[in-house]
Amino acid sequence: MFAQRISTLSSSIIREILAAAQQPGVISFAGGLPAADSFPEPNWSALPPQIKQYGMSEGEPELREAIAAAAREKGLQCEASQVLVISGSQQGLDLVAKLFLDPDSPVLVESPTYLAALQCFRLFQARCVGVPMGETGPDLAQMDAAIRTQTPRFSYLIPSFQNPSGLCYSVAARQAVAALLDRYQLPLLEDEPYCELDYDGVPKPPICSLLKSAPWIYQGSFSKILMPGIRVGYLIAHPSLMPHLVRLKQAADLHTNRPGQWLALEYMRSADKAARLAKLQDFYRLRRDAFAKALAEQFADLADWQVPSGGLFVWLKLKRPMDTRPLLKQALANQVAFMPGEAFFADDEPPVGYLRLNFSHTPPELVEEGLRRLRQVFEEAYAAQAVTA
Amino acid sequence: MFAQRISTLSSSIIREILAAAQQPGVISFAGGLPAADSFPEPNWSALPPQIKQYGMSEGEPELREAIAAAAREKGLQCEASQVLVISGSQQGLDLVAKLFLDPDSPVLVESPTYLAALQCFRLFQARCVGVPMGETGPDLAQMDAAIRTQTPRFSYLIPSFQNPSGLCYSVAARQAVAALLDRYQLPLLEDEPYCELDYDGVPKPPICSLLKSAPWIYQGSFSKILMPGIRVGYLIAHPSLMPHLVRLKQAADLHTNRPGQWLALEYMRSADKAARLAKLQDFYRLRRDAFAKALAEQFADLADWQVPSGGLFVWLKLKRPMDTRPLLKQALANQVAFMPGEAFFADDEPPVGYLRLNFSHTPPELVEEGLRRLRQVFEEAYAAQAVTA
Repeated sequence: MFAQRISTLSSSIIREILAAAQQPGVISFAGGLPAADSFPEPNWSALPPQIKQYGMSEGEPELREAIAAAAREKGLQCEASQVLVISGSQQGLDLVAKLFLDPDSPVLVESPTYLAALQCFRLFQARCVGVPMGETGPDLAQMDAAIRTQTPRFSYLIPSFQNPSGLCYSVAARQAVAALLDRYQLPLLEDEPYCELDYDGVPKPPICSLLKSAPWIYQGSFSKILMPGIRVGYLIAHPSLMPHLVRLKQAADLHTNRPGQWLALEYMRSADKAARLAKLQDFYRLRRDAFAKALAEQFADLADWQVPSGGLFVWLKLKRPMDTRPLLKQALANQVAFMPGEAFFADDEPPVGYLRLNFSHTPPELVEEGLRRLRQVFEEAYAAQAVTA
Repeated sequence: MFAQRISTLSSSIIREILAAAQQPGVISFAGGLPAADSFPEPNWSALPPQIKQYGMSEGEPELREAIAAAAREKGLQCEASQVLVISGSQQGLDLVAKLFLDPDSPVLVESPTYLAALQCFRLFQARCVGVPMGETGPDLAQMDAAIRTQTPRFSYLIPSFQNPSGLCYSVAARQAVAALLDRYQLPLLEDEPYCELDYDGVPKPPICSLLKSAPWIYQGSFSKILMPGIRVGYLIAHPSLMPHLVRLKQAADLHTNRPGQWLALEYMRSADKAARLAKLQDFYRLRRDAFAKALAEQFADLADWQVPSGGLFVWLKLKRPMDTRPLLKQALANQVAFMPGEAFFADDEPPVGYLRLNFSHTPPELVEEGLRRLRQVFEEAYAAQAVTA
């Protein structure tokens, strides 16, 4: 009775975790929510009356201009005509999946990668092919081999402060990846929702800006730098892809909500935009640093990690690997929540022993207590293993 | 390189017509825009701060309650847990297509039907099977035969003041259709964006409320009764379908924008909601009546039509059928726009000689002049035919 794709809609672990993590008393490192304290107070009353009417599928012309100008400052040569405003960057995944994916189409992803992207591509019955990551970017030999042997329809990369790993590709890695994609003419979807959440001033030219001939789509969001409740993101695409993406957008929801687009435009135009971003970076840098300090105190003997230079997450690798999924129940019983790492891998049998911790949402004064609770869960699990063994 | 579905994305006649119709001086009966004068002035400054954060995929709990309560008043027994807030009712078409359609799946549609629904279902590579409409509803014998021989995955009906035809099913037709769907257990997507735009007080129980066992999805929108720029609609689904639809929504765009949802809730809660709707109906009734009068003066000898009891459109059938698509160019040259009817049929070789005229957007003082210009186009076309013949 249902479409075949519905069989891929397994129960969503994320939804269940986030629901459980919202119980009172639970200190949650599970979600990816930006801190509510960071949101500005918009001047809603200045909303122009024309935004009440239907708008253009491509988005508001002035907002498209502003997005293109900001992208050019990042080094991405583009025009406003290449910008499509979307209902949050999640919608970009849906549109690009529609553009490229037939049932059984391979798609190249990072390993690990953004869980909701895996879910979206699987919904289009794609076969997600994961490329292992090193400390500065993808394993290029394995990426090359995957492209040659699997002939993916497109590649999906999150080069800056990735969710879940926090990894930021080096400039050399970006150049090497661009050369590889050009060699195979493999289209790139570069997803950069965390790009602006840079706490250490890392150089990070868009890979799309380094491509010479491969088709590309660069994607960004206002959810992390402004507010997520308005559901406004954007993609910028190679001119050859734009007409299709605009029609796919139109079929999906006609156009993005205009009050949200207007708020995004106000943000882009604000005279103190740079100062606001610096303040946001300061806010999150303090949280990152406090979290890193508490983590070093609580988990140095249990796990390895790199303190990320941006984004919202720390990615822990257990020194003694164990499947972290069964531990979630104990963690919630212990009033703390984390995100098991296994779900972020494309593999049917994912590697075990990883967890993702969000450092942006929990107030610093609760972090130490939360990590202490989490440590206890792991200590008890290892003790139980020792008894069993 | 692209997915197979992309080959179905032909150039959109609607987009081209609407762009041309916006040229200064053109009197446009082509679009389906609600009148901007009808939009209220929202109290944006009362927006609560929590709407800035990510929200629930299902929608705001209070809005879901209000939507369910209003649906129960229409006779549709449902709970808030069956309501999914969506990014305009266009998104409902995308989600329901994802739920039911594999490549080559048949889907039962009205003939004619909403053009953007045809485009959406075709994007999912469906085969749209059209059922001819009579004066009070579908041809039941042909509908029965289509279900038996084509075994569609679901049926898509717009029973109240349909776009493009303006048709409103009689109560008897609604009952007969419900019995037919029950007999075959054929799921129904009932799309009711125009339901509230009722100028003559027509009884119109939802077909979903008359079903005894067939699965159903009822869909509505705030675009016509409040404002379309906020992109807020809703669907109400049989409990067996909800878990899938929620996950499909989450994969599509996480959740609907919250400022828009808040505005919709304010509307639903407003003490003067009934009075506001009555005022809106008065506004459109005047436009409908003025249009009907001018149409009778200009087109009585050229076409047949029924004055619709609601909605936004009059559907003309030419007494001497000719393909109206080639006439659009002359019409635009003559500073008037209409929508050729051929595009609204599922058939590869659609019937010719129909046109859709919008009566809601053009101010009454321009209607007579617009219809005079349009009449001239048809007169010239017939004269040219006579010369050729």
